[in-house]
Amino acid sequence: MNVAILGFGVVGSGVAEVIKNNCKSIEENSNVSLKVTRILDIRDFPESEYKDILTKSFDDILTDDSIDIVVETMGGVSPAFSFVSECLKKGKHVVSSNKELVATKGYELLALARENNVNFLFEASVGGGIPIIRPISRCLAGNKINEVAGILNGTSNFILTKMIVDGMSFDEALKLAQDKGYAEKDPTADVEGLDAMRKICILASLCFGSHVYPDGVYSEGISKITLEDVAYAASYDSVIKLIARAKKIGGDKALVMVSPCLVKNSSMLSGVNGVFNACLVRGDMVGDVLMYGQGAGSLATASAVVGDVIDCAANDKERKFFGWGDKKEGYLADYLDCETILYVRAESADKAAIEKAFGSVEYLTRENQPANEIAFITAAAKEKDLRCALEKAGINALSVIKVSDY
Amino acid sequence: MNVAILGFGVVGSGVAEVIKNNCKSIEENSNVSLKVTRILDIRDFPESEYKDILTKSFDDILTDDSIDIVVETMGGVSPAFSFVSECLKKGKHVVSSNKELVATKGYELLALARENNVNFLFEASVGGGIPIIRPISRCLAGNKINEVAGILNGTSNFILTKMIVDGMSFDEALKLAQDKGYAEKDPTADVEGLDAMRKICILASLCFGSHVYPDGVYSEGISKITLEDVAYAASYDSVIKLIARAKKIGGDKALVMVSPCLVKNSSMLSGVNGVFNACLVRGDMVGDVLMYGQGAGSLATASAVVGDVIDCAANDKERKFFGWGDKKEGYLADYLDCETILYVRAESADKAAIEKAFGSVEYLTRENQPANEIAFITAAAKEKDLRCALEKAGINALSVIKVSDY
Repeated sequence: MNVAILGFGVVGSGVAEVIKNNCKSIEENSNVSLKVTRILDIRDFPESEYKDILTKSFDDILTDDSIDIVVETMGGVSPAFSFVSECLKKGKHVVSSNKELVATKGYELLALARENNVNFLFEASVGGGIPIIRPISRCLAGNKINEVAGILNGTSNFILTKMIVDGMSFDEALKLAQDKGYAEKDPTADVEGLDAMRKICILASLCFGSHVYPDGVYSEGISKITLEDVAYAASYDSVIKLIARAKKIGGDKALVMVSPCLVKNSSMLSGVNGVFNACLVRGDMVGDVLMYGQGAGSLATASAVVGDVIDCAANDKERKFFGWGDKKEGYLADYLDCETILYVRAESADKAAIEKAFGSVEYLTRENQPANEIAFITAAAKEKDLRCALEKAGINALSVIKVSDY
Repeated sequence: MNVAILGFGVVGSGVAEVIKNNCKSIEENSNVSLKVTRILDIRDFPESEYKDILTKSFDDILTDDSIDIVVETMGGVSPAFSFVSECLKKGKHVVSSNKELVATKGYELLALARENNVNFLFEASVGGGIPIIRPISRCLAGNKINEVAGILNGTSNFILTKMIVDGMSFDEALKLAQDKGYAEKDPTADVEGLDAMRKICILASLCFGSHVYPDGVYSEGISKITLEDVAYAASYDSVIKLIARAKKIGGDKALVMVSPCLVKNSSMLSGVNGVFNACLVRGDMVGDVLMYGQGAGSLATASAVVGDVIDCAANDKERKFFGWGDKKEGYLADYLDCETILYVRAESADKAAIEKAFGSVEYLTRENQPANEIAFITAAAKEKDLRCALEKAGINALSVIKVSDY
């Protein structure tokens, strides 16, 4: 089957490479023959082995009836959304790795795919090469899934790992991530949680059945985490991780958010280091299932795209039975109304004031702890009540980080 | 769609319960309506809510054309093999959780399913509720998979965890596992590696494409592991785990085996504790992917069965594109011919003899180490050469355990 690729960047070029390298084993194992016959990119690649099939005109792909499957690896919503829409309307299957597109337009595109009797698949949009979307939608289909949580951004996990393991400061670790090509020049989307937030929107939509749009989802990054926090977390037998999570709560509401969290060392998520990602799914029948692997990288992500392409090709006439409903009004809970445990580091020595405001707390210690620094773990309570107590205690909070129950 | 269950034991009754509990959410999410209309068991269940649909006659199921999907949760090869064969020939999809059946008859049954244009699915046969088979066959289809390894037996992992974490002896931990219902009265299949071996046969067949039968696969259990070994492993920053693994090696051969291994604490497999299972897949494009969760238990395993049932029902006309070829002669490598690193504990104090036989080794220590006990880690070499060196050193080896590179 003929495949076209929209966007010849990191992932798109990886898709071409995976298909070229593994076409023989793909044919043996899955009985489909794949060939990349067109690649769209606005840039010139005069040295590329694909130069003869590169085009700058989307119409060359849209109007080519020999192309059955279109891979979208451009990123961004525009023009990806209109390109994907056009391809689906033309009866072409579309496979995308574009989390921004799926998070903001997934509902529309899934509906459009259904209308036109083709598939829109996006395994690579969450967790790069790690199987997540299909295991959730297929293998765990016998479960009600009420919680999903994960480490979904490799860049921020790399930075945190360097802080925890090598004692680097955030700035040093970010610089290293940039030098290694893990972080972009403007690292905001990674370190401030936006990237992880788009992914948890996709997972929440898939697990809970109605589209969760990024607008209104609380997202907090890691740029304020300090080595002092890392040390206190260690004394609590924990590490700090950027956790994206979605949880169904009473009254047909869901809490969807991204924030740094203290994660106990006994949790499988605590061992997810470096650029690796992991996704934990909590099913009512199966309990906790965790999927772990490389969350990014050209070939890893591309291999997930190619897995979807093979699925489309091998089951050309089959429609995938996954998808989700439209957004529900009033569906997203405010995290301030939800119960949590907080880690607090403060400029204070006034335990009496803290205990008056919070009741009993668990104090933490670290090496070289200044006399006017205090750190503690609160009891579980509504976050807004804990924030209120913090104000009441009249202390200068330097860090406030949630404690994860995953 | 109507579903029949063969065998109303732990998993079979779980399947009925999952379908009953979650039929509404299954219908919402996957657009299929499932109903259990017949259950086969030779036993009487006079108190069961299913008593009206229980039967002792397989023909009641085979000849009932209203039954589209048959779930086989009997275990064992006979009569499961003939029952499953008959159902496939009658044009019924079959979903099985029976690892012994799949490991010994998988090739035949997959071929029979293809001939009769139905599906034979068995996600639950490896790793209970954890998605493993479908992620490998679908999501990772763009990869060449050359290695797969895992902790695939929850009972032995529970026992090892109790030895490592709580300092129980093997016998005490086994007793506790039996008291908790994790281990059977005759625990041989679990603790001697047979159960894990069947599962790695299935995974090797799936990943490498030709059926690996249990005959001739080397399998070593955990019954000889002592607390002394656990202590030495800890001093090597490792834990002892029962590892099932399959690896392609040169000349179209594969090493498939089960044995205890020292696993470094930095490995994700080291954190898999208690009755949990994990499976690590090494793809040429994606790198390492790990899937983790409850490897057994009535509802967890049943939820994987129901996932397959939903797949059959939602895609009644679709044939799964997975399967594998027949056994290849001379395909299995002898583990003695393969390279490994060994941990050795011996009654000896003769370092000179050890170093003469092995060259440079890494000595380990433990608390209360007797003067005439020595433990060390060898360099990597062919296992038979290491065994030879052991003989040459003339020492009385108390334990010899492989060191894992996963």
